[in-house]
Amino acid sequence: MHYCSHCGSLNIRQTRLPGDHVSRLVCADCGTIHYQNPKIVAGCLAVWETQVLLCRRAIEPRYGLWTLPAGFMENHESTEQAALRETYEEAQAVVTLDGLYAVQSIPHISQVYLLFRGYLARPEFAPGPESLEVRLFHEAEIPWNHLAFPVVVKTLRCYFADRAQGHFGLHVGNIEPTPR
Amino acid sequence: MHYCSHCGSLNIRQTRLPGDHVSRLVCADCGTIHYQNPKIVAGCLAVWETQVLLCRRAIEPRYGLWTLPAGFMENHESTEQAALRETYEEAQAVVTLDGLYAVQSIPHISQVYLLFRGYLARPEFAPGPESLEVRLFHEAEIPWNHLAFPVVVKTLRCYFADRAQGHFGLHVGNIEPTPR
Repeated sequence: MHYCSHCGSLNIRQTRLPGDHVSRLVCADCGTIHYQNPKIVAGCLAVWETQVLLCRRAIEPRYGLWTLPAGFMENHESTEQAALRETYEEAQAVVTLDGLYAVQSIPHISQVYLLFRGYLARPEFAPGPESLEVRLFHEAEIPWNHLAFPVVVKTLRCYFADRAQGHFGLHVGNIEPTPR
Repeated sequence: MHYCSHCGSLNIRQTRLPGDHVSRLVCADCGTIHYQNPKIVAGCLAVWETQVLLCRRAIEPRYGLWTLPAGFMENHESTEQAALRETYEEAQAVVTLDGLYAVQSIPHISQVYLLFRGYLARPEFAPGPESLEVRLFHEAEIPWNHLAFPVVVKTLRCYFADRAQGHFGLHVGNIEPTPR
């Protein structure tokens, strides 16, 4: 942020306001506080029979790697609507949601993933504009070394472990930065 | 938003970009897209023995009405950290979280509430700067007609119903606008 979106001033300063616990971007001219908050990424772990639907990314970051259909929740929608919309946009798949499955905070990039379990009524899907390829994977076929994000690895691991035990819990957790 | 925060231009237009499904605030001069996304409100339904902790709001909106301790999640924290921080800030209470209890979307104001169940180790609390008063309520004492927000009413109703049945589920749902 270079300019104050309220008054156009360039006097934006990181400021610790009285009684506040973190510093904010504050306009020194008009006083507007520019709050910045985490974004929600909503998506779906969708299955057809015993196979899981994954999309190969046609966009950066992680172009060419496989991911669960998911993306930024929009204003004026619910978490379920966001998950269904993203699944349709990225995989052209219509799914029925089975419940919230994972709430994973990623503090270092200020994102919270809300991933639902869902199922396809028919094995019908196709790559949307942000996907190179969409396909179903049996557990033994999951491209573990070509998954786009740690949250995808974690959620798929939880899913197959839960499925083996016959019970799907809710997984609330955090994703730490990957050591380089 | 009056001015582009990137280049300072006043040429901000609601624009439907190619391939996008909603219109965005786009700077007609520098092309910056100013995305706007829902905010997370994290908080806690904290109990001491059979009593629930509520805070009477010292701020607008709903000054003077009772609420669960909750507030906007900050960048660089987890959902649990946000819930614990808000509970401490508003009720000066240290709680142990028992799990995520409610994920309530409020599409008309673009908020998602993430409320955890928690318990106080000791009945120690006090109003923080944003609270007039903090106290514990037995179920029969809940000030149903003086609660601040529909999401608080809904979550407390779920809680007492679940408690009567001896099982706490996860409540994922939506809050619709209140008819006037």
